[in-house]
Amino acid sequence: MIMNQYEDPLALVDVALFTIQEGRLSLLLATRKNPDEPYCGALALPGGVIHTDEDEDAQAAARRVVRTKLGFDPPYLEQLYTFSGRLRDPRRWSLSVAYYSLVPEGVLAETRIAGLEFVAADSIPQLPFDHNAIADMAIRRLRNKSTYSSLLTFLLPPAFTIPELHAVYEQVTGSATNIAAFRKKVLDEDIIEPTGERRTGGQHRAPDLYRRKGSGVQELKRTI
Amino acid sequence: MIMNQYEDPLALVDVALFTIQEGRLSLLLATRKNPDEPYCGALALPGGVIHTDEDEDAQAAARRVVRTKLGFDPPYLEQLYTFSGRLRDPRRWSLSVAYYSLVPEGVLAETRIAGLEFVAADSIPQLPFDHNAIADMAIRRLRNKSTYSSLLTFLLPPAFTIPELHAVYEQVTGSATNIAAFRKKVLDEDIIEPTGERRTGGQHRAPDLYRRKGSGVQELKRTI
Repeated sequence: MIMNQYEDPLALVDVALFTIQEGRLSLLLATRKNPDEPYCGALALPGGVIHTDEDEDAQAAARRVVRTKLGFDPPYLEQLYTFSGRLRDPRRWSLSVAYYSLVPEGVLAETRIAGLEFVAADSIPQLPFDHNAIADMAIRRLRNKSTYSSLLTFLLPPAFTIPELHAVYEQVTGSATNIAAFRKKVLDEDIIEPTGERRTGGQHRAPDLYRRKGSGVQELKRTI
Repeated sequence: MIMNQYEDPLALVDVALFTIQEGRLSLLLATRKNPDEPYCGALALPGGVIHTDEDEDAQAAARRVVRTKLGFDPPYLEQLYTFSGRLRDPRRWSLSVAYYSLVPEGVLAETRIAGLEFVAADSIPQLPFDHNAIADMAIRRLRNKSTYSSLLTFLLPPAFTIPELHAVYEQVTGSATNIAAFRKKVLDEDIIEPTGERRTGGQHRAPDLYRRKGSGVQELKRTI
């Protein structure tokens, strides 16, 4: 190891993971379980130290944290911002490369990991470190990016109806949008496509099912 | 110091600093001067190791790098992205919190620091580390944010004319925009205001001078 004349910062990753629970945008918190680390027993964003022996980069570290602490591989994981400083962690000067992730409702139901809890995104409790600042920035980014991309489709199952996408859009952005205009917009922008199937089981005329076009997030030409 | 069972990454900051030189968007490169560090003698983005003994956070570290390596205090400095991984630096697993900065033409002329060089943003040479990836992302961010904010005013002196702002806009975004529509847009969006003075010395009718409204970047309601 080549030495550095300055003490190295503690290098961490943290993940703000969102889903829809009972119709509301919700943030996942995990109970801190390591007695050698600060705030053991407290609810916080899932995170941890970068394992330089196994993580290829910070994104891989965040993916490992989700996989090992939450029990699944995150379909959408994007770097948010790096939070840093002398005072944010009681251990020492630290930096956390923060990520945000979106999963469809129910994904967490399959994990058998204890100590996980969802809180509504508009009523997050006091969290340790600067995790409230991380969560707040993640919500702002999510709200903003929702207006010009197909990002919100990652909160839905692979096949969804336009009314379902519209409901998630209104929930996340907090804005009322005419559904006919919304439908025209998302279809004109070519970010979703019909699966050819219809939602069955309802009492009304069965609505068409759609899926995200392409594997990643598509950006819209204009805002919704 | 509380030990970490994993080797800590080397924690750095790097800055992609842009200005307008002879009408072209240009990126500043600095000759690496430390013989104990890799690529000594090469041109690279100005950067350095975070000094945990003196830097309050990564932003302060980036500000110190600009101040000490370029000789002035950067008026605009925004976090871009954190680049990380096992292979990006020959020393060891590293992460660089990358920033971008904009300065008006001529600011660098006042510094007496040797080894600084501007290159046109559309013809950046091969750089060490992953500095080409950092520069490319900074240019994309700059181009994108220019269409919905007052960001580009930071490439101009405190007082500027609308034709000057328009020329910078066309240079950075690479798009031809009708100047009358551009003038109406920036005035309607209320991001600049008249200084009450006019540019004197030209042969034509002296154009009005404007300044940025507010101290930071204002976001537009819609794209230009």
